[in-house]
Parts: sequence; structure tokens; C-alpha cells
Amino acid sequence: MNILIVYAHPEPRSLNGALKSKMVEHLQVEGHEVQVSDLYAMNWKAVLDKNDMLSRDDSQPFHPSLDSKYAYETGTQSRDISAEQEKLMWADTVIFQFPLWWFSMPAIMQGWIERVYAYGFAYGFGEHSDRHWGDRYGEGNLSGKRALLVVTTGGWESHYSERGVNGPIDDILFPIQHGVLFYPGFEVLPPFIVYRAGKTDGTRFEQICSDLFQRLDTLDSTPAIPYLRQNGGAYAIPSLTLKDDVNPAVIGFSAHISGFKDKH
Amino acid sequence: MNILIVYAHPEPRSLNGALKSKMVEHLQVEGHEVQVSDLYAMNWKAVLDKNDMLSRDDSQPFHPSLDSKYAYETGTQSRDISAEQEKLMWADTVIFQFPLWWFSMPAIMQGWIERVYAYGFAYGFGEHSDRHWGDRYGEGNLSGKRALLVVTTGGWESHYSERGVNGPIDDILFPIQHGVLFYPGFEVLPPFIVYRAGKTDGTRFEQICSDLFQRLDTLDSTPAIPYLRQNGGAYAIPSLTLKDDVNPAVIGFSAHISGFKDKH
Repeated sequence: MNILIVYAHPEPRSLNGALKSKMVEHLQVEGHEVQVSDLYAMNWKAVLDKNDMLSRDDSQPFHPSLDSKYAYETGTQSRDISAEQEKLMWADTVIFQFPLWWFSMPAIMQGWIERVYAYGFAYGFGEHSDRHWGDRYGEGNLSGKRALLVVTTGGWESHYSERGVNGPIDDILFPIQHGVLFYPGFEVLPPFIVYRAGKTDGTRFEQICSDLFQRLDTLDSTPAIPYLRQNGGAYAIPSLTLKDDVNPAVIGFSAHISGFKDKH
Repeated sequence: MNILIVYAHPEPRSLNGALKSKMVEHLQVEGHEVQVSDLYAMNWKAVLDKNDMLSRDDSQPFHPSLDSKYAYETGTQSRDISAEQEKLMWADTVIFQFPLWWFSMPAIMQGWIERVYAYGFAYGFGEHSDRHWGDRYGEGNLSGKRALLVVTTGGWESHYSERGVNGPIDDILFPIQHGVLFYPGFEVLPPFIVYRAGKTDGTRFEQICSDLFQRLDTLDSTPAIPYLRQNGGAYAIPSLTLKDDVNPAVIGFSAHISGFKDKH
């Protein structure tokens, strides 16, 4: 299949750099077509601003979403933005690889999302009625595609466990997996996490690669996280709150996973 | 008191721009000293890279945290970074104001955190023993200071409620409030949120300002979110998981708030 890797790390001679190279090599050997958006190497412009729109009326206030809509519709987006949109449309699966910095994506990748996710491309369309509230959260321009996060952390696995001090890794990643990926239609696979990335010797690196390759070999068969579809009947419209009989005991992020069983 | 506003919006003629101006004016009238880091106006460099370190051995791989430690200790950080660190040390209260973009801070502010939060300044110090695991989560270089988020969203308040489709706003902001602010020592005040920011007429703007001013007038008396201190006895060390008798029914982000009562 066609696989796009969106990758953010400033140093090729790093664990992330090595994993990215191994991943590309493995996927190509397995017969996939691979493109890599290496954001640091591309010197990706991280900051969304009016320079992203090549033909706008500078006398008017800059409106990030409405200006992006106009530029998308009129083909006047900055060329680096439309090139990434084309890669997304080409891909069957998109892998986002990054070190977790301050419990989020690095700024350069956050800026990739902000700029590439134009109004009309990633959000802002679809019927709004009493049964449908836009094509999002399970529907949208990127539906039919799969997404996978490959993330490294400095902290220990226990620090990211259900009662670990950093908060559970699934909750930390929810704004990305649900809010950034499921939103425009991706099916989101369970993430691949490397904890204590700073403590990686040669033996451990081999094991990490082996585990990662297994995930790469099952990209099309791994069950996606069963997030509830916004327009599938689980949510009241337009409040977009879960109906009382859906995961009735649950509040918080986990409530948006189909059939989630509250553990307590 | 001394108040630093770290502000990110690309357009001064926006709701965020107007709120920022009103906030500065109000705080000054009330007798506070105010500094503003207007990240877009400053053309803030969003991307952490080796150019942030003015004196490093370029033959060696760039290591984001260890290189930042060396630059901080040797006074060889980029001048824009040390200037922001000085503002943080000067401030009694820091207000972070931004529109919520894709459930996170704009990239330019994420990059402010990444670059200003140097190893040795915001993390990476303090005793590591069986009773103390670094000066963090309630201790650290910024302890004694208070922080407040002022955030606008396009979505409705119900979409960010306990069972709203976006997830609860308190959980969406946890990686920032707990992971970015409480981590280096800030006391974190409950956030000030403006929902449906795109639907703000003159009457509503006056009400928003009035509500915001009330928050500004009570910065020193508003109770902070009672996050549990990492080294205060609630966590096992070094696993950094909550002890069984601390919020025993709770998993997830809320478990890290003192005396949190599970609602279900």
C-alpha cells in the first residue's frame, strides 16, 4: 500500500532517526510505496500565518479558518501546504512519528497539522441537520485511511500508567488520536510507544525494531480503536453529548470508545 | 504584582487581540506591572533546533535536552530564550492566552514552551532518592508563581462537557495545566474559557470582559487546582503511581487532584 510517514526529530543520529530509517527500509522491502515528510529536514514552516495564503486582501483582518477556506477553494494555498495535502490523499496509511515533548507533539508537527488541515480539506463541511453535524469524527476527507502514532518518551511506562503521575498515555494521546486523526476520518490504530527512550542499547534497539516491524506487518489487519462515530446515533445533536444509554457509567475520554467498560 | 502574558494569535483585530488589549489595560489600571510576550508580533522562533545553542560542538549529534542543559549552564542559550526565562522569573503570575487549535496550543506557543523550558531551568534537577524524584510536579524553579490559561474555542460548551464529543475541557487542558505548568512548580488556577468565540457580538464581548476582569481581580485569592504533589506522599517512588489509598476509585487525569470524588 501507499504509506506516508510524517516525522519530526531534529537529529538524524538519534533513536527516532534510526527507527525512521529502519521503518522505511522494512516497509519498502515488504513492497510498500513510502513517502516521508521529514519536517526538520524540510525546514517545515511551523507557524500558521497570513503568508500561507498567496492571494488575500491584506486590508482585511486575517481570519485563520476563513482565510484557509478561501485559499483552499481558490487554489491559492502556499505550495508546501498543498503538497502535503496531496501526500495525505495519496496515502492509504499515515504514520506520525515523534518524541513526546511536554506531553504533546513537537511544535513543528503541531504546525504541520494547523497548516495542512485547511478548512474544506480537514474540517468545515458536510450537512448540518438534526441527524448529522458535519462530516467529522469518523467521516470526512480522510476516511478509509488508517493512522498510527509511533512515539518515544523519556519517562517510564509506569509514569504513564492508569494511575501514573503523568496521566495515562491513552489519555495524553486522545487529543491527537481522536481530535486530530479520527476527526477528519482516519481509522486510528493503537499507538506504538517506546518508553525511556534515553535508555536504549543495541539489544533493546533490536527488540524495539522487531516489535515495530510486527506492527508494520499488520497495519491492515490490526483492529482500529473503536471510537464512536459522531453521526452514528450515539450522540445527541446538536449538543453532541453522548446519549444516556451509551457507556452510561463513564465520563471523560474513554466514554467515546465503543463498548468501553468502566473498570471500577 | 508582576504579570506576564504569553499570547499567541496572528491577528490583532481578532477577539483574542481585543481581549488581550483589554486585559493589559485593566491590569495596569489596577496597579500591576505587565509584560506581554506577543509571540506572533515578536516573530517568535517556534522550532527547537541546534541553532538555539550558541556554542556547541557541531561534530556531535544534537541532543535536545542535553544540549539545552549545556547551553543553560554555560550561558550560551539563544538570547530570545534567556529573555523569556528572565520574564518568567520576574513574574508573580503568568497568563497564557491562545485559541485552542486542534485541541492544543498553537504551534508557536508549543515552541515557546519547548525552547524556554531548558533542562536545568524547568526540569532535570533535584534529589532522586526513595522519597523524592526530582523537583517537579509542585516543586521547581517556578514554584510560588501562579498560572492561568485564557482560552477561546470555536466549539460549543456542551461539546467540551463531561460527555461531550470533544472530551471534557479539563481533560483536554490537563497536559498543559498539569504537564507544562504544575510540573515546574506553578500553582494553576482554573482556566478562563470562551466557547463559540466566532459568535461574539458587542454585548457578549462586554460580558466576557466583565467575567475576565473578575478573574483578574482575584488572581491572588482564587484557589488553585489542588493537584497532588509528586513528592508529598501520594505517589510510590520511583514508579510514580498513586498509592492505593489515594483517590482509590479513580483512574485517569482526575486521579491527580486532591480529594477528587468520582461522580459515578
